[in-house]
Amino acid sequence: MIRVGVIGGTGYTGVELLRLLAAHPQVEIACVTSRGEAGTAVADLFPSLRGHVPLRFEDPSEASLTQCDVVFSATPNGVAMQHARALLAAGVKLIDLAADFRLRDVRVWEQWYGQEHACPELLEQAVYGLPEVHRAQIRDAVLIANPGCYPTAVQLGFLPLIENDLVERTSLIADAKSGVSGAGRKESLGTQFSEVSDSLKAYAVGGHRHLPEIQQGLEAACGGPVGLTFVPHLTPMVRGIHATLYAQLKRQVDLQAVFEERYRDEPFVDVLPPGSHPDTRSVRGANVCRIACHRPPHGNTVVVLVVEDNLVKGAAGQAVQNMNIACGFEEVAGLEGAALLP
Amino acid sequence: MIRVGVIGGTGYTGVELLRLLAAHPQVEIACVTSRGEAGTAVADLFPSLRGHVPLRFEDPSEASLTQCDVVFSATPNGVAMQHARALLAAGVKLIDLAADFRLRDVRVWEQWYGQEHACPELLEQAVYGLPEVHRAQIRDAVLIANPGCYPTAVQLGFLPLIENDLVERTSLIADAKSGVSGAGRKESLGTQFSEVSDSLKAYAVGGHRHLPEIQQGLEAACGGPVGLTFVPHLTPMVRGIHATLYAQLKRQVDLQAVFEERYRDEPFVDVLPPGSHPDTRSVRGANVCRIACHRPPHGNTVVVLVVEDNLVKGAAGQAVQNMNIACGFEEVAGLEGAALLP
Amino acid sequence: MIRVGVIGGTGYTGVELLRLLAAHPQVEIACVTSRGEAGTAVADLFPSLRGHVPLRFEDPSEASLTQCDVVFSATPNGVAMQHARALLAAGVKLIDLAADFRLRDVRVWEQWYGQEHACPELLEQAVYGLPEVHRAQIRDAVLIANPGCYPTAVQLGFLPLIENDLVERTSLIADAKSGVSGAGRKESLGTQFSEVSDSLKAYAVGGHRHLPEIQQGLEAACGGPVGLTFVPHLTPMVRGIHATLYAQLKRQVDLQAVFEERYRDEPFVDVLPPGSHPDTRSVRGANVCRIACHRPPHGNTVVVLVVEDNLVKGAAGQAVQNMNIACGFEEVAGLEGAALLP
Amino acid sequence: MIRVGVIGGTGYTGVELLRLLAAHPQVEIACVTSRGEAGTAVADLFPSLRGHVPLRFEDPSEASLTQCDVVFSATPNGVAMQHARALLAAGVKLIDLAADFRLRDVRVWEQWYGQEHACPELLEQAVYGLPEVHRAQIRDAVLIANPGCYPTAVQLGFLPLIENDLVERTSLIADAKSGVSGAGRKESLGTQFSEVSDSLKAYAVGGHRHLPEIQQGLEAACGGPVGLTFVPHLTPMVRGIHATLYAQLKRQVDLQAVFEERYRDEPFVDVLPPGSHPDTRSVRGANVCRIACHRPPHGNTVVVLVVEDNLVKGAAGQAVQNMNIACGFEEVAGLEGAALLP
Repeated sequence: MIRVGVIGGTGYTGVELLRLLAAHPQVEIACVTSRGEAGTAVADLFPSLRGHVPLRFEDPSEASLTQCDVVFSATPNGVAMQHARALLAAGVKLIDLAADFRLRDVRVWEQWYGQEHACPELLEQAVYGLPEVHRAQIRDAVLIANPGCYPTAVQLGFLPLIENDLVERTSLIADAKSGVSGAGRKESLGTQFSEVSDSLKAYAVGGHRHLPEIQQGLEAACGGPVGLTFVPHLTPMVRGIHATLYAQLKRQVDLQAVFEERYRDEPFVDVLPPGSHPDTRSVRGANVCRIACHRPPHGNTVVVLVVEDNLVKGAAGQAVQNMNIACGFEEVAGLEGAALLP
Repeated sequence: MIRVGVIGGTGYTGVELLRLLAAHPQVEIACVTSRGEAGTAVADLFPSLRGHVPLRFEDPSEASLTQCDVVFSATPNGVAMQHARALLAAGVKLIDLAADFRLRDVRVWEQWYGQEHACPELLEQAVYGLPEVHRAQIRDAVLIANPGCYPTAVQLGFLPLIENDLVERTSLIADAKSGVSGAGRKESLGTQFSEVSDSLKAYAVGGHRHLPEIQQGLEAACGGPVGLTFVPHLTPMVRGIHATLYAQLKRQVDLQAVFEERYRDEPFVDVLPPGSHPDTRSVRGANVCRIACHRPPHGNTVVVLVVEDNLVKGAAGQAVQNMNIACGFEEVAGLEGAALLP
Repeated sequence: MIRVGVIGGTGYTGVELLRLLAAHPQVEIACVTSRGEAGTAVADLFPSLRGHVPLRFEDPSEASLTQCDVVFSATPNGVAMQHARALLAAGVKLIDLAADFRLRDVRVWEQWYGQEHACPELLEQAVYGLPEVHRAQIRDAVLIANPGCYPTAVQLGFLPLIENDLVERTSLIADAKSGVSGAGRKESLGTQFSEVSDSLKAYAVGGHRHLPEIQQGLEAACGGPVGLTFVPHLTPMVRGIHATLYAQLKRQVDLQAVFEERYRDEPFVDVLPPGSHPDTRSVRGANVCRIACHRPPHGNTVVVLVVEDNLVKGAAGQAVQNMNIACGFEEVAGLEGAALLP
Repeated sequence: MIRVGVIGGTGYTGVELLRLLAAHPQVEIACVTSRGEAGTAVADLFPSLRGHVPLRFEDPSEASLTQCDVVFSATPNGVAMQHARALLAAGVKLIDLAADFRLRDVRVWEQWYGQEHACPELLEQAVYGLPEVHRAQIRDAVLIANPGCYPTAVQLGFLPLIENDLVERTSLIADAKSGVSGAGRKESLGTQFSEVSDSLKAYAVGGHRHLPEIQQGLEAACGGPVGLTFVPHLTPMVRGIHATLYAQLKRQVDLQAVFEERYRDEPFVDVLPPGSHPDTRSVRGANVCRIACHRPPHGNTVVVLVVEDNLVKGAAGQAVQNMNIACGFEEVAGLEGAALLP
C-alpha cells in the first residue's frame, strides 16, 4: 500500500480520481486538498463517494502532501507547478492532470496558457504520461505530465499512421466531439444545461490549447513538422470524446493490420474489427480507448474513429495507469472495470 | 468460485448483470443464453464487455444451465417459469429478475400479467429477494424472486413508516420517476430518443404491474390492508429511479432516527442527513438506495425521497446481492464500486 | 401597433418574450434594456433572433421606457418594483414576470423574498395575471403580476376541484417536475449540464417561494385555508413543467365533465380526453396548458396531470396573453403557434 | 388559399410540415394520409396539433389528393414515385420530401436505394428543390425533389468555395453531426433513448445515401468531378445538423466576403460575422441555415461551420419554401418564426 494525496479534489477529474483510487488495491488515500472546501467532508460534496472516501478536504497548506508516495494534482492549469519543487524535493512522485508540464517548450507554454511558468527547469525531467509512447520513461519518472483528453484520443488515433509514414503529415484533420464534463466543474454560463442541452457547436476553431500538445506528440513520432487542423465541438453528453480523424494516404497498406500490430500489447487500447463504429458509451467509466479504422471508397482519405471517456483514459484513469507504471504495480490494477452501458 | 448462467443476456438488466458478474471475485460466468442472438459473441453485441466476457450467446436449449450453481433469468416476464422446474430439480439456485415469482397469489399474477402461470406450485417456495426484509429466508432459498425496480425503491422508503405504524396506511402516495432503461432494450416507438428526450410524462396512472407487488410487500409489513396511489413517470434519463413518497403522519416522532435505526446495519441502504435531496446520479451504477426524509412545515405530511439505479439496486445489483446471501459469500462481494459521477 | 419595452431582456423569459413579441401583429418592440449588456446587439447575444429583433440592449436609465404603451419586466425579483412608480405615473402599463407584485401580503412577500418591498402601496392595485381567474380585472389593469411557472400549472390543475368543493383542501399534494430553464440564465454550479443531465432530484422540500403564491390563489378560490405540500423536482430537460396533483375526493362526481366545463371557453387550457397522459413536449413553445384527470381504482384519490411550457404559459406567453387582454387585442394574438414536436 | 394534401403525415417531417402548413396564411390543409393510422384524428397522434389540424388521417386510396393544388409526400423512400404520375396528370404539383426524385441518374438511384424506380421518365422534369441554386426552375416546377437534410447543409456550405474554384475539389471533407430525429419516427432499436442518449458515434462511414446526392450537386456547381469524404454522426439531440466542412484553399481570398456575397439576397441563409461558432439551437424550428467561415492559422485548410434544423431547412421548411416559390407566394410566407431558444 502506498500513500496517495490529491491536490484539488473538487473537480470532475478529482472526483473520478477518487472513485478509482478508493477501489485501488494498493492505494491508501491519505489526503485530499481544496482551498474552497477545506473542512467539508468529501462525501458531503460528492454523495456518490459516501462510504468510499471517509476524508475531509484539507487546505493544501495543512495537508501532509510531502508525506505521500504519490501526489496527483487535479487542479486548474498553473497550480501543480507551485507544488512541484517541494514535492519532488521530498521524494514524492507528482502526477499532474493539468497542463503545467505537458509542453517541452516553455515559451510555447507561456504563450498558450497566458502566465509565467513557475519552474521551467523541471520541464526537462517531466515525462509525458502517454504510456503507449513513453512507458519506459514513465517507469522511472518522478514528475509525470498526464496528457489532455483531446490529445490522448487524437494521438492514439494518428500514431500508427504517422509512425509508419503512411499519410501526408501536413494536412491532418482532427474533428473532435467532447462531452461537457471536459469543461470542468465550475460556475459558467456557457456550459449551463439550458445552453448546451439538445444543441451542438464547434468552438475555438481559431486555436485550442490542446493543439500544440498534439502537434508536439505527433512531431516527435515522425521526426518532422506536422500540419494539423483541430476542431473541437461541444456536444450534449456528460462524458466522452469522439475524435474523427482524416488523413491522406501516401500508399496502399493493410490499415487494420497496422493498427492491430501497433496496439497488440496495449491493455487499454482496443482496435475494433473492420467496419466498426464505436460509440462513446462503450467506454463510459472505463480506462480504454477504442479505435476503428475506415477506408471509404474513392480517394485517398483514411478515416479513424477514436472514442475514450475524457475523465478516464483522457484524465483520471490514465493518471492511475501512470501511477501503476511508475510504482511498479500491475499496469491494470484498479482499472479493470467494464464500461457502464447503457 | 461458482458457475453461473444467465438466461436472456441481451437486455439492459442482462448486460448490467454481466458487467457485475464479470468483476465478481467468486463467480465464473459459464453461459449466457439468447434465442435471437445465439452464436453472436457477447462482446459484439455489447462492446463495453470486450475483454470482460469472452463468451458467445447460446440457445437456451443447448446451454449447460443445469450444470450451473446459480442461474439468473434476465428475460421478459413469463420465461423464467418455463425453466424453473428443471433447474430446481437439478439443484440449481434460480434468481429471476422478472416478475414470474414475485406475487404470492397466482390469480393476482395471472390477472396483471395476462397469462397462465406455468408452475404455480413453486410460488410458495419462492422467496421475495428484498434482503432488507427477507435476508434470513434468502440464505436458504433456491428460488428467488428479485424485486422490481419501482417496488424496491417504494418499499424501502415506506417500510420504516409502515412497520412502526407511523402513518395512515390507506392514503399512501408514491410519485415515481424512472429513467428510460426501465422500459427494457427493445424496438419500441414510445421510447425512441426523439419521443422521450427533453420531455416528461406520467404513464399507467390507471394501474401499473408494480402496484400489486408493492402492496403485497407493504401489507406484509404492517399486517393489514394498504391503500396506495402509485404514479410512475417516464423521464429523459437513461438510469435512475426517484421515488417521492407522501404519507400522513399519525403522531409526532423523530423520523430521522426511525430511518437511521431501521437501516443501520444495511450495507446498501444509505439514510442521508436531514435536509438532503438525493439525486439519481449519486447512485448511478452502484448497488445502493439513498433515502432522505422530510417533514415540511404545516400539516401532517411526511415526504420521503428515495433514489436507486433501476438497473442495479433495482435489478442486477440486487440479484447479485441475493446470490451473495444465498451462496454464503460476503453480501457486498462484487458490489463495492462507487457510483459514476458525473 | 403599440410600443412595447422590455426591462431585462437577457434571461430565458426575456428571449422568449422577444421571440413572441417580434411575431406579434400589433406590437413594435421599442427598447430592450440590460445593465450588463448595454450596447450589445440583441441578436449577437441571441443569434436565434437575427433578423427578428434589430435592436441593441440599452441601459435602463437611458431607455425610453416611459414612452412605451406597455413595459414587460423580465428581470430577477426586486427589479420591477424599482421601476413601477415611474412607469405607472407615465401612464405605462407594467407587466412583471417576476414575483414583486404576486403576493397580496407585503409581510409574507418580504419574508419569502428576503428584502424590503419598494412600493407596497402598489400591491393593492396589482392584478394577478392568471386570465382563467382574473380576466375581468386584467382588462382594466395597469400593473399586472404575471404568475410564476409552478403556480400557473398547479392552480389550473386544482381550481376545478377547489372551486367546486370536491376535495379535502387540507391535504393537497403537488409533485412538480420542471425543466432546468426555470432556474434562469445565469452562472451557477447547480444547473451545469454535467450536474443535472441524466439525473433527477427534488429540491426545496422544506419550502419554495412558489408555495405561498399557490396557496394565496387556492385560498381565494375556495374562501378558506388550504393545506398544500409542494415538492418541486429538477429534471433533465430544458423546458416544461409537469405537475402531478393529488387530492382526496369528498364525493363522487364526473371529474371529466367538471374540468371540461370549467375550461370550456378558455383558449389556452386544453382538457384532454379521459385516460390521457400529456407529455411536456406537447406544449413546447406553445402558450397552452394541457390537463388530464385520472381516478385510479380503489380509494378516494384523484390525480390531475398538468403540463405547460414554463417559459410560455408559465411566463412569457402568459405575459403576452395578459397584454392582449389589457390592451383590448384578440386574446390569442401572437400566441397561435403550435408546439414544436419532436 | 390553395388546397394542400400531405401523403404520409405520421413521421417527423410530416408533423413538422403540418405545424408549418397550419400556420401558413395561404394554405388550407385538405387531407393527410396514412395507411397505418387511417381513421385516427391527427391531433390524437400528435397532441401538439390539437386545435391546429382538425383532420383525420385518411387512407391514401380514399383521400382526395388529386383535388389538391399541391401535394407533399413525407413518406419513406419509394412511396412518392407511386403517386407521381397520377398527381401530375391531374395537374397537381408534387413536392417529395424523400429521395425518389433527387438523383438524375436512375441507375445510381437504384443502386443506392435498392429498388427499381417506378417512373424514371419523370426524373428529367423533376427539379431539385434547393432554392439557393435552382430558384428559377422551381418557379415553374410541377415535380420538386426536396433535398435531404445533410445535402442541404453540406451543399450550402461548400457552394461558395466550389462555384468560385477556391478549393481543391478532390479532397473535400464533410464531418456532419445529426440529431436523432433524422432517423425518422419508427420502431427501431438503434435509436432508442437508452441506446443513443449521452453517447455519440459515427455511422455509415463506408457510404451513406446522401453522398451521391451531395456529389451530384457539387459537381453541377463546378462542372467537374468532386471527391468528397462524408462522415455522418449520430448525436444525442432531437433536432439539428451541424456540418463541419474542410477544404484545401487554392489561393488566398477574403472568404467572409465570398460567403456574404453569395448569400446576400437569400432570405434563409445567414452568414455569421467572422469568428462565429453557430450552435444548432440557434435554428431550432426555424427555416434558416447559418454559416460561419474560419481560416485557422497555418496551412491551407478552410473550415466552414453550417447549422440547420434537419426537420425545417433540412426538410419540411424547405418544402414549404419550395411551395411558396412554385405557387408565386412570398418566399418567406409561413416561415418567418424565430428559432426556439433555449
